[in-house]
Amino acid sequence: MCPCENGIAPPPADNSEMVQVPLNGSAAHSVPTNGVNGHANGHTNGAANGSAPQARPVNPYAPRASDFLSNVSNFSIIESTLREGEQFANAFFDTKTKIAIAKALDAFGVEYIELTSPAASEQSRRDCEEICKLGLKAKILTHIRCHMDDARIAVETGVDGVDVVIGTSSFLREFSHGKDMAYITKTAIEVINYVKSKGIEVRFSSEDSFRSDLVDLLSIYQTVDRIGVNRVGIADTVGCANPRQVYDLVRTLRGVVSCDIEVHLHNDTGMAIANAYCALEAGATHIDTSVLGIGERVGITPLGGLVACLYAANPEYVKAKYNLPMLREIENLVAEAVEVNVPFMNPITGYCAFTHKAGIHAKAILNNPSTYEILKPEDFGLTRYVSIGHRLTGWNAVKSRVEQLGLTLTDEEVKDVTAKIKELADVRTQSMDDVDTLLRVYHSGIQSGELAVGQKEALDRLLIKHREGSVTRSSSPSPTRA
Amino acid sequence: MCPCENGIAPPPADNSEMVQVPLNGSAAHSVPTNGVNGHANGHTNGAANGSAPQARPVNPYAPRASDFLSNVSNFSIIESTLREGEQFANAFFDTKTKIAIAKALDAFGVEYIELTSPAASEQSRRDCEEICKLGLKAKILTHIRCHMDDARIAVETGVDGVDVVIGTSSFLREFSHGKDMAYITKTAIEVINYVKSKGIEVRFSSEDSFRSDLVDLLSIYQTVDRIGVNRVGIADTVGCANPRQVYDLVRTLRGVVSCDIEVHLHNDTGMAIANAYCALEAGATHIDTSVLGIGERVGITPLGGLVACLYAANPEYVKAKYNLPMLREIENLVAEAVEVNVPFMNPITGYCAFTHKAGIHAKAILNNPSTYEILKPEDFGLTRYVSIGHRLTGWNAVKSRVEQLGLTLTDEEVKDVTAKIKELADVRTQSMDDVDTLLRVYHSGIQSGELAVGQKEALDRLLIKHREGSVTRSSSPSPTRA
Repeated sequence: MCPCENGIAPPPADNSEMVQVPLNGSAAHSVPTNGVNGHANGHTNGAANGSAPQARPVNPYAPRASDFLSNVSNFSIIESTLREGEQFANAFFDTKTKIAIAKALDAFGVEYIELTSPAASEQSRRDCEEICKLGLKAKILTHIRCHMDDARIAVETGVDGVDVVIGTSSFLREFSHGKDMAYITKTAIEVINYVKSKGIEVRFSSEDSFRSDLVDLLSIYQTVDRIGVNRVGIADTVGCANPRQVYDLVRTLRGVVSCDIEVHLHNDTGMAIANAYCALEAGATHIDTSVLGIGERVGITPLGGLVACLYAANPEYVKAKYNLPMLREIENLVAEAVEVNVPFMNPITGYCAFTHKAGIHAKAILNNPSTYEILKPEDFGLTRYVSIGHRLTGWNAVKSRVEQLGLTLTDEEVKDVTAKIKELADVRTQSMDDVDTLLRVYHSGIQSGELAVGQKEALDRLLIKHREGSVTRSSSPSPTRA
Repeated sequence: MCPCENGIAPPPADNSEMVQVPLNGSAAHSVPTNGVNGHANGHTNGAANGSAPQARPVNPYAPRASDFLSNVSNFSIIESTLREGEQFANAFFDTKTKIAIAKALDAFGVEYIELTSPAASEQSRRDCEEICKLGLKAKILTHIRCHMDDARIAVETGVDGVDVVIGTSSFLREFSHGKDMAYITKTAIEVINYVKSKGIEVRFSSEDSFRSDLVDLLSIYQTVDRIGVNRVGIADTVGCANPRQVYDLVRTLRGVVSCDIEVHLHNDTGMAIANAYCALEAGATHIDTSVLGIGERVGITPLGGLVACLYAANPEYVKAKYNLPMLREIENLVAEAVEVNVPFMNPITGYCAFTHKAGIHAKAILNNPSTYEILKPEDFGLTRYVSIGHRLTGWNAVKSRVEQLGLTLTDEEVKDVTAKIKELADVRTQSMDDVDTLLRVYHSGIQSGELAVGQKEALDRLLIKHREGSVTRSSSPSPTRA
């Protein structure tokens, strides 16, 4: 176990800890540092200043103090909604929509925006040129097959870099392009040298990396690293890799190449967020995402989910890097464009991501939100909601609502009215309005002396009387809420 | 890297490899074996018979041959839709719905079904008794606070076991129940001994385990293990743990207790499936799930997602254990009951989980589905769909459709008509009907000699002529499709 988990504060981290460099401060590798220490714990402020760590609670979800490979607090996002996302069954982005998405992603703060190959269609080419001209802060990439024809078209669009991909697994070599490793290597070198000669970034990625022969894979990565590729990419094209497998492959690769490492992870078994997290722990530098994860089949690592797990590890770093309250807006923009709903269980923006229901949860949340929330809703421009109108409710949650309504009840009285809420909710869930009405009727009964703790029948009479009064009032010309 | 990944077949596995026992066949620990070897690779048939491994392709997603701790092919599911799921904001299950869900889960083959505490409400207690009387194959559990009052009510319902939980983190001790570790330990011993005296299973779980003091945690687990608890549970109550952290804690615990280990993982950062997978790799024996992951906030490990990743690791084992084609039906049942949509990116049942769109993908899929699919749709009673009416399409996919329609075109002609599909799709996505019509018009033009490769204007004329004919036909009294 790491020292963090035993409650011992980690040592202060220097400003530029790097992969493969187990000593503070020796920057031997050109990973972008983003101005924040690589391995700070979640409660350390962004700007490392060499002062001693203060006695603050340690974040158990922060990168481990001793984990020198980890880039969990030192990474870039390659946002591929406009490339991988276009491969989603429902996606058809017209130029206007593409521009709106690119601008929103840029405002959110992603480091790269990846676009569909200009070789795919004439409109794809024109849109690529258009987006390059927007003058965004994010670097613009396009994604092409490892082929000189595609490369020539790509470099003419004005992009900042080209992502080159070719299938290296025996499956893809046999059933897709039919090329052998010697051919793949030769073509890769030709394409990389050509793109580099134009003065822009170039990435070389295998496809279906986890089913590729490891020796072939490392061999071609080493070759392209030596000729000066900016990044190599690992792709879990079929979406079936697991976290420790991703960790091991990235870590192995980290020892073979000195360039940056990008990962592209499909989500067929629901592990793409975790796989991305583990890739960063193993020294990856760039993660591919798309908004809501849209892409081929069930898509890839979603932007929001990745942000959620990295925020849990280091909230200050993530808050400084991205405009988090924009997340919901971007997700809504893309959801509308591809005609899907934001999934109800989406991290952060799922419609009940900050709704607390069980009695014991509600009590603790009302005492201190950190008890059940690591993700602070206010950091994402959202609010928390404690649900109390159901049979799992507890009297502490009800007491809190009583206080919010400005009513005065003793603990005994609150327990008594909570029993009534549970009884009613056993028949059907009570809305907040239902609960508030019950609390008000109960309170006024206590005040007037018509009610005391345990008088179930008296309470029922008061509720019936109230309902009849409501009906009368609401059928009058100008209804007023009680 | 494990030998599997280099293409070397793993050694034959014995029928009962156990946690903490690095030798084949020594069964020192009472993990249920489920009749299948614990560490077989994905292509080994269920019944281990000691014969030499055959020369079949190795599954790179299978558990590693040398990973003796792993229970990825030796686990039980504790299905908590009727407990954790009831804590989902939208959930209100009446008795009839609870029974329908319990029966469906039993038919699917889950080993345990967990129900809301009978202490929560009178109806909860009655429903618990009712479900115990159904005579299901699955064992019925109920989930209670670590309190004698709750335990007394629970054991009277007829359940097969009781899951006891108490918060052990400093957060929950301070802001929830306010008890110290000495009190927690004393109560735990009392409750466990009481439940055991009734002859039923008992599990003791901490809550918020990853923010609990490690020494406190191991100490109480060791204590309850010694008095004969059946399982201890680790809970990521706030949903922020990451895979390697889960692996480390479970592995550490595996060295401390000899009883079974259950994990309960919330999904706030989208890593609950992966965390469950890594827990099994570290020697956990039981995983909590709910259908679609419903539960507090964004819920817990979803049943379908867990099945997806375990199927990828060992399809034969998972197919033998569960009725996979029922998955979609169960998800629809629960989605309807809690009024949510099955998320579009749900593993396996997401509506485009088996839809292939990009040209290079479509080509390979048509040659051999394993190129881009590890999850076979037919094992889940589902079908694959190759989408071709969009600008990312490729001529190989179009050629396949031409053949399906029984038309005859040369490769040059297919490439020519593909260019037309891309051109039309640059304006708007073409439906399968649109594409089929285009292919038929193109084909009949070639047949009649009105058209040849590259004659764009002739094709446009034929399409206009066809559309006018269609309009005439469809406005006539008995329209017939061309």
